[in-house]
Amino acid sequence: MSGTGQNRTGRRPGPTRTRGAILDAARAAFATRGYDAVSIRGVAREAGVDPALVHRFFGSKEQLFVAAMQLPIAPGAFVDALLAEEVDGLGERLVRTLLTLWDTPGAFAPFLALIRGAVDNEAAATMLREFLTSEVLGRIAAAAAPDRPEFRASIAGSQIVGLAVARYIVRVPGLALADPADIVAAVAPTIQRYLTGPLGSDGA
Amino acid sequence: MSGTGQNRTGRRPGPTRTRGAILDAARAAFATRGYDAVSIRGVAREAGVDPALVHRFFGSKEQLFVAAMQLPIAPGAFVDALLAEEVDGLGERLVRTLLTLWDTPGAFAPFLALIRGAVDNEAAATMLREFLTSEVLGRIAAAAAPDRPEFRASIAGSQIVGLAVARYIVRVPGLALADPADIVAAVAPTIQRYLTGPLGSDGA
Repeated sequence: MSGTGQNRTGRRPGPTRTRGAILDAARAAFATRGYDAVSIRGVAREAGVDPALVHRFFGSKEQLFVAAMQLPIAPGAFVDALLAEEVDGLGERLVRTLLTLWDTPGAFAPFLALIRGAVDNEAAATMLREFLTSEVLGRIAAAAAPDRPEFRASIAGSQIVGLAVARYIVRVPGLALADPADIVAAVAPTIQRYLTGPLGSDGA
Repeated sequence: MSGTGQNRTGRRPGPTRTRGAILDAARAAFATRGYDAVSIRGVAREAGVDPALVHRFFGSKEQLFVAAMQLPIAPGAFVDALLAEEVDGLGERLVRTLLTLWDTPGAFAPFLALIRGAVDNEAAATMLREFLTSEVLGRIAAAAAPDRPEFRASIAGSQIVGLAVARYIVRVPGLALADPADIVAAVAPTIQRYLTGPLGSDGA
């Protein structure tokens, strides 16, 4: 007999199976409802476990998302770490750290999956948009110049995404074969200007 | 009786049907063999028509690709037109013209289809990479500064692609809702520097 919370051996599911059930429920929830509307409480209910258990396993909604999408880093925490140093070298640290991560074999695959989802269907695009807005762009905007910080963060993000698409997905030779140091040297000043420099021809 | 080159009414297929057969053959050829390995002669053979007819209908392999992919512009000819003016304002003309095009209802859809293909499967990524390298990036590189022109063209392209993904696909609010003039003012200096300005912290 297998009652609620018990598997076919008659024992309660172990931590690994429970963790898997939570991640399955989280993936389904994020894929259908986006990022903002999903709560740890809701995922716990759908996985048939106590919310405290989800908190104990994953800590936060961002970490639950990161585990569900198998990302090798937590983007929000990653940005926090970059922002802990002074804002002046932020563009360079951001580009260098991301290239080092993405150049690691296998490390780009989960990001490709997120981009593929967003390009393939509206619900996954909403999920990625809400995740980036809630956990990544807001943090970057907080460190950007006070003149249009959200625009600054978004346009910096667009250069990062474009770099990822061109180097790792379309693999145009001029970028796919380029030395990371050359890419950092070229792109870092762009990111830095977008975040803290003059934005337009009016010098504003 | 319907013999070769005849449809069920016993007449030879009209220009519309022939054109459709050529485009079907072209789409299949590009999707499986990429851009470089496809020839007008090969597409004609697969469509069962004379190569001269493909030339008469479409003019060039690029125009055949553009028709097959239903692009609202021919990217190579588009770049040629932009390059006909002086290189100094190229970044601004490029970003402004693309935003005007893509902001037109329906005009981004064919580009989305190309990006979606490239993100979804290797063969479509190869097709897009070869098309961009053959017809777009080479032309831009020819107008870029002599120091690493292919790298310059590719990195400029990465910012353009990132802008498209962020504004039209993921639709991050900071970019999706931004005034095109603000985007042009912010991004044009980036494109211009990538193409003709100093590329790195060494001032090179």
